[in-house]
This record gives sequence, C-alpha cells and structure tokens, in this order.
Amino acid sequence: MRVGDVAYRTIWVADDARSIQIIDQTLLPHRFEVVTLSSLADAAHAIRSMQVRGAPLIGVTAAYGVCLQLLEDGSDAALLRACDTLLATRPTAVNLRFAVEAMREALQGVSVGARVPAAYERATELANEDVALCRSIAEHGVALLEKVHAAGRRPVNVLTHCNAGWLATVDWGTALAPIYLAHDRGVPVHVFVDETRPRNQGASLTAWELAQHGVPHTVVADNAGGHLMRTGRVDLCITGSDRVTANGDVCNKIGTYLKALAARDNGVPFYVAFPYSTIDWSLASGDLVPIEERDGDEVRFVSGRSGAGDLVRVDLLPAGSPVANPAFDVTPASLVTALVTERGVCDASPQGLLSLYPEKRS
Amino acid sequence: MRVGDVAYRTIWVADDARSIQIIDQTLLPHRFEVVTLSSLADAAHAIRSMQVRGAPLIGVTAAYGVCLQLLEDGSDAALLRACDTLLATRPTAVNLRFAVEAMREALQGVSVGARVPAAYERATELANEDVALCRSIAEHGVALLEKVHAAGRRPVNVLTHCNAGWLATVDWGTALAPIYLAHDRGVPVHVFVDETRPRNQGASLTAWELAQHGVPHTVVADNAGGHLMRTGRVDLCITGSDRVTANGDVCNKIGTYLKALAARDNGVPFYVAFPYSTIDWSLASGDLVPIEERDGDEVRFVSGRSGAGDLVRVDLLPAGSPVANPAFDVTPASLVTALVTERGVCDASPQGLLSLYPEKRS
Repeated sequence: MRVGDVAYRTIWVADDARSIQIIDQTLLPHRFEVVTLSSLADAAHAIRSMQVRGAPLIGVTAAYGVCLQLLEDGSDAALLRACDTLLATRPTAVNLRFAVEAMREALQGVSVGARVPAAYERATELANEDVALCRSIAEHGVALLEKVHAAGRRPVNVLTHCNAGWLATVDWGTALAPIYLAHDRGVPVHVFVDETRPRNQGASLTAWELAQHGVPHTVVADNAGGHLMRTGRVDLCITGSDRVTANGDVCNKIGTYLKALAARDNGVPFYVAFPYSTIDWSLASGDLVPIEERDGDEVRFVSGRSGAGDLVRVDLLPAGSPVANPAFDVTPASLVTALVTERGVCDASPQGLLSLYPEKRS
Repeated sequence: MRVGDVAYRTIWVADDARSIQIIDQTLLPHRFEVVTLSSLADAAHAIRSMQVRGAPLIGVTAAYGVCLQLLEDGSDAALLRACDTLLATRPTAVNLRFAVEAMREALQGVSVGARVPAAYERATELANEDVALCRSIAEHGVALLEKVHAAGRRPVNVLTHCNAGWLATVDWGTALAPIYLAHDRGVPVHVFVDETRPRNQGASLTAWELAQHGVPHTVVADNAGGHLMRTGRVDLCITGSDRVTANGDVCNKIGTYLKALAARDNGVPFYVAFPYSTIDWSLASGDLVPIEERDGDEVRFVSGRSGAGDLVRVDLLPAGSPVANPAFDVTPASLVTALVTERGVCDASPQGLLSLYPEKRS
C-alpha cells in the first residue's frame, strides 16, 4: 500500500540479499523509519517489542528470523534453538507457530550447506503467499461493502478495532483489505477507527495507513462504538483475528468482544477477516485460547508527539496503582455475522469453516 | 475521604472564614495542590477550567462563588451578575443551575448588609446536603456488596467506569460511596478501574482517590472489562450517572453502555448510583437526552508525567486525521440491574423510580 507516493510492503529482503528490513511500527504515526534486522536476536526483539505486530507479519518476520540464524550457524541444533526462541516471543498468535513449523519442515531434509538459500526461498514464499491471501480476502470481503453501497448507503460506514491493515500483514491487510479494494474501485467508504487502548494501534497505525492511502476515516475512543451503533452511524463492523478456533470463536485484540456485543444489540453485521493460517483446528472453542497478559506499563505509559515535536513517553497513572493488561479477548461465534477468508465468506460455525476447508473434515 | 492521613473534602471554607479552597483536579494524579479562590472570577475559572468537575461539586463551587462576589459587592445587581457569570461556565450542568437558583432564592429577601453570612450559610448547607446524600447512597449500596461478600466472594470484585467518587462530589461520591463504606467496615473490596478515555477520569481520579483511601484496585484499559467479566473476575459493576430519565435509562460517560452489555451477557449485576437531582423526570426515555459532542482534542491529546517529572501534553494521532468525541452514551434501563439513590435501591423502570419518589406520581 502507499506511503506518500511510494508503494511499500511491511517487510522485505534488503539490497545485500541477506538482512531484512521492516518499518518500525513503534514510531508510527509520528515517524516513518525503516529498521534493518541482521540476526535472530534482532528478529526476536522486533517481534517482542512490537516493531512488527499483527499475526501474519509476526509469522513472516519469524520465518526471516530463521534465515538470519542460519546465516550464522546452519546446524540442526541452531535451527531448533531459533525455532524455540521465536516461538517464545508471543504466545497468542497462531501464525507464528505456523510459520516456524513451515520453516522447520522446509529445512529438515536439507543439508546444512544448502540451508541458507532454501530458508530465504521458503520465507519469501511465505511473504508472497500472505500478500496473495490478503488480496483474496479483499476480493471476497469487498462484496459485503458493495452490497451495503448498493442498498443506498453513501458513504458505507465501517467500524474497525485495532489494526488489521497492511501494517499487520505483508501487504493489503485482512480487515482493511476489502476497504482498500472498495475505495480503489470508487465505492465511497468511511471508517470509524477505534483508538484501541492500550498500545493505540488504531490511532497510531490504522488511522495512519488509511490516511496515507487516502481513505476517509474518523478516530474515536474505544468507548464510543456502542453509541455510534446505537445512533445508526455504523453500517458494518469488520476486524481481524489473532486466532479463530474450530467452532468459529474469534480471539482478537482486547475490546473486540465489546464491539461485537454492541453490534448484535443494534442489528449491525459484525465480520471477521483472516487467512487460513489464523484458524486453530486443534482447539474446539475460544475458551481454550491462552490469553496473553502483557506488561501493565502498556496501560500506564503512552507515547506521543510533544509540542516541540519530540516523541515523549508520559505516565498516566498514580504512582503505585496496579495495572492489569490482558491483550486479547474472545468473541463467541454466536456474535459474529460471518467469517471472511481467502476462500470466501462463511458462517462462524464448525460447519461454516468446514464448508470452506473441506479437507479438514476428519 | 483520606489524602494520605488527612481527611479532606473537595471544597471548604479557608481559615480566614472567607476564601474558599479546592483541590486542583487538573493536576491529579501527579500533583496534589490546594488552590484558594478569592473572587467570583476565581470560582468561575475553577469550574470552566475543570479544576473542579463532577455535577455536585460544580454546583457547590458556584454557590461559594456567589459568596465571594457578595464580599466585594452585596447589591442586587452584583448578585445577578454573579449568577449569570456562573451559569455561563458550564451551561449543560443541571446541578449548577440548581445551586445558583438556591442561592438566589435564599438571598433575594435578605438585606444587603446581611447577605454575606446568609450566603455562606446557604452554600455550606448545600455542601453538607451533598455529603448527606452521598452518605445515604453509601448506606443503601453497601448492602449490595455485603450480599456478595456473604455469598463467599473474597475480595468482592467491582468494576467501575469514569469517576463517580468523592472528587466528583463534596465527599463520599456516588458509585464509589458504597465501596468506601464497605472498605471502612472491613469488607474486602477490590475495584477494577476503567481508564475511561478520553479525559482518563478513571486513571487520573478514581485510581488516585482509591489509592489515597487505601482501597485495593487495578487500573485496566476500557477494552478489558468484557474479558474480565467473561472470565468470572467481576462480581458486580457500579457507575454513576449524568442524567437518569423517568424510565430508568442511564446517560453516563461514553462507554458505560458497552460495559452494561458485557454485564448482561455474563450475568454480572450492573448498578447505577446517583442522588435525586440526577433524575430528569421531564424526559420519558434516554433517547431524548442530547449527547454532547466535545472537542476532538480530548481524544487527540493526552497529558501525563514525563520521565523528568513535568506534566507534558502529547499528540497521539497522525496529523490531520479527523476525530469524533461523543462524551456520553445511553444505557437502556433493560441492561441495568438496579438503581441506587439516597432513598434506597429500586428497579430501573418508571415504577421503580416512582416507588422511591412517590411524590412524582402525577
């Protein structure tokens, strides 16, 4: 997608054909900076510190992290250590495990000397596959927006939570992919962007990428969505997901569940968009997903641009007040109108998912 | 309530028996500063700049503002000017009008020479009445917490939104009053404090006052409440209200509605506490309450303490991204388990309210 007049991906192999470059998402929306990853430690740090975030992008970053490790040591032991290190960075995103497993499978039969090119090839394949998946999600999801537009809504008002845009993937995004495609096709779309505390991925990333691509939007506090739906200002909600379980339950950024409740209470369709790699077929229900408790400092501190233009971190809380910071919640399938994947649109149910992925019938 | 080891109210007559002292709430939780109001202009500024906020406290500050004016000029013309000046500070606050009218009524039959003591007497009466109302709310509400405790919950986990504590009133508060009383009686209580974007009244004020009084609490992002309820960590919710309509609908800080939806979805009781002056008998339903749209800068900017200890305001958003900032939402009575007022606990319904206020039957 566009940053100014330049088309970017979120991650790419640098000109030296070895190191990896990413956009440092912790500095957005205030500074656009490209960071070079030269080692496994750099890649693990980028994931842990959320320089990269979003389940698909985390997966691709981990894949390239394996490549960076193999540059230093191509042994089986080093490969296993790299996989373990990367898997430990973030516990909730299932794509991380998927990508690490894909790398391990691709490399285990390969001789130590041939592993580096094989690793880069597989990682780049995963990156390109992600772009193709997101583009397919866009194609299937755009019909949902076009239907609302055909019914006479101008603009189509969409509410989204967190960032499931191109910054969360390699390009296009998941939840925002249909929005970009609708916009590019001339469908008038306006997006209510939840600020998305803590970490403010909506205010920092979603608003930024929509602005860079020229999509009309309005930032609101997370608290506002219920009121907006109750007063008829939202035509549909669409979010991404960090993990969808086999029954269609949706694990996503904390607060998603509250918006789904408000959508149901007001008859607003609530869609969730993701690629197949987000589906955890091994879990029967969202209640089984481990919910990551992140550092309370993410709630306590916030960074922004001071009047002087510096990035400043400020403390919002009384000294000593304890903080809890659950990072995700589970939206039960019963609150989800439909799921949107690279294969199409389906009910949020075991039957719905299996209709798109019949090969998963056991 | 306590600040450190000292019992405070939010407003009081200073040792000179003339000037008025308040806690500057714009500096909390980072600095505790007492400000002296010596003139009508000081009082009007304190209300306008939100050094004092919360409908009951605004009313009492206005009453003392009239006193300060009369010290300088006790004429009818000066009294009228004072009332007009004060009414213009926050034109939407119902209690402000109530308090200014109460002062005007108390003083209009009093000779100019006798007005100053009469004014201080009436203003102090209004302050004391507010404390008594809140104390009665505490007495009625504490039974709800004691019931949960008697059922074996240790601690009793309460979730609250925004600030409806003693800082919003003269003392005790509304939603927090039962919590303080339970704590003082030895019932173990723990409060989940919604940060409450924008303006962060939970993080800045509720957390601070609970900490000062020694009540265990945990600050959470507004997004977290649904997850906390879904995982069984909340025994009951209690909030204040800015306006309750005759059918029991609750207008309160934006985001209250989302918590009420989550409470219903998880079988968690949702209570709303307020004094009689919050009830708008003239409106049949919450859908008729005008919802104030406040300045988007309240979402865009946030203030906090920098590493150097200064209070710094930072910009959270991409330059040019538009913002919407509805300040309140309406929680339908059907989502409210019960209302708590100075007269008792009742159903959130026309019948419930009239059972406590039978004189309002027409």
